[in-house]
This record gives sequence, C-alpha cells and structure tokens, in this order.
Amino acid sequence: MNALGRHLLLELKECDREVLDNLEYLRKCLCETAEKIGATVLNNVFHQFSPQGVSGVVVIAESHLCIHTWPEYRFAAIDIFTCGDTIDPKSAIDILVEKLGAGQHSAMEIERGIFNRELMAVD
Amino acid sequence: MNALGRHLLLELKECDREVLDNLEYLRKCLCETAEKIGATVLNNVFHQFSPQGVSGVVVIAESHLCIHTWPEYRFAAIDIFTCGDTIDPKSAIDILVEKLGAGQHSAMEIERGIFNRELMAVD
Repeated sequence: MNALGRHLLLELKECDREVLDNLEYLRKCLCETAEKIGATVLNNVFHQFSPQGVSGVVVIAESHLCIHTWPEYRFAAIDIFTCGDTIDPKSAIDILVEKLGAGQHSAMEIERGIFNRELMAVD
Repeated sequence: MNALGRHLLLELKECDREVLDNLEYLRKCLCETAEKIGATVLNNVFHQFSPQGVSGVVVIAESHLCIHTWPEYRFAAIDIFTCGDTIDPKSAIDILVEKLGAGQHSAMEIERGIFNRELMAVD
C-alpha cells in the first residue's frame, strides 16, 4: 500500500430519527463499532445541538471515527479514518447501518497520504 | 444548496517536521484556524502518538476539523467539515499551509448529505 490512511465516507439515510438525536446512544454506538472493527478507542467528544442533532468524534489509535446527524432529515454523515493495514474501515458499514436503522446508505473510500515508492523509502 | 454539509479533505506534504509532532501547537493551530474562518469552537481532543505523530479533532458548532500527522513523512491529513452557508471550508487552506509550512498541498471538496428538493422539503 502506498497510502498512509484509508478514509471511508459513509452516508446513512432514512435512519431512526430518535436515535439520531440521542447523544449517549451515538457515543456508545461509535465506540462499540470502533472496537468491533478492531480499533483501540483513546478518547471521544460529543455535542448535542439545539433544537436537534449531534456531532461526535471518537479518536482511535488508528485515527478517528466521527458522526454528524440531522434528525430532521433522518440523515447521518459518518467518517471512518484508519491507518495501518490491520483494520478495514468498510467492515463498519453493516454495523452502523443496523445500529442507526438506516433504510439507505452509500459509502466512498478515499486513500489519504499517497506517496510514490521513492518518497516512502525516505527516513 | 441541496447538500447539508461541505467536507474539505486537505493533504499537506513537505511540512515542518517538528510542527507535526507538537500537540499543543497543532491544537492551537486548528482552533485558531476554525475561529479565523468564522466557526465557533465547542471542544477539542488531541492525542500524541509514540514515537511520533498527533491526532486531533476540534468540534465546532458547524461540524468539525481534524488532523492526523506523520512527521516521518512530513505529511498531514486535515479535514474541514462544515454545515450551513456561512463558512467556506476552502478559506482554511492558505492558513493551514502557512502554519504547517507545507511545501505541497492538495484539496478535494465533497458534498455531504445530498438530497433532492422533494426530500429537502419534508418536515
């Protein structure tokens, strides 16, 4: 692999509206998902918006997971950014679709930090 | 706009190596950048890796900024995710390039939460 990181951008639509406005559920959901895919959770920070919506980030030893929710549109944008070869961020998709009750989802994976071999060999 | 969020993926290469391993500098850098582009900082969490590298996230009222650094490759991956129409995440590029002393950079903007008009009108 010539990329330092793998970044999965996950979009969940037609989610359970109440779940998307439940900060403690979402905190537990993201931390548990991180652990299930083999990541090591280091820290997290979540914020409840008024009148609705939650933003949250879980910092993992392998980078991060984050979520932003719009309960009014039953929509959540989730990122799963991992480095190293041990974790496949795509393995989180089915878990999150189920936990958020998403009726529709789409995902895009982007490689981050792409270097040619010559540069990778430096230092 | 039919998208709920704008997500800028910024890659900085040939950065100042010492800066990329300085947690407090990076925390200040991301918080200051958030404020300069007109965002409201709510919280932040940063982690120092051993032997090197920093991960950090700044939660803003408009979503988040995050950074992962690889000092050994003089590389930083930065995300700036904003919702609403008041902030242009691209306005952070020049600030971050300068603060991290990046010799090369590239950026990609992705719209998050795209709905057709019919769905946007619901609720």
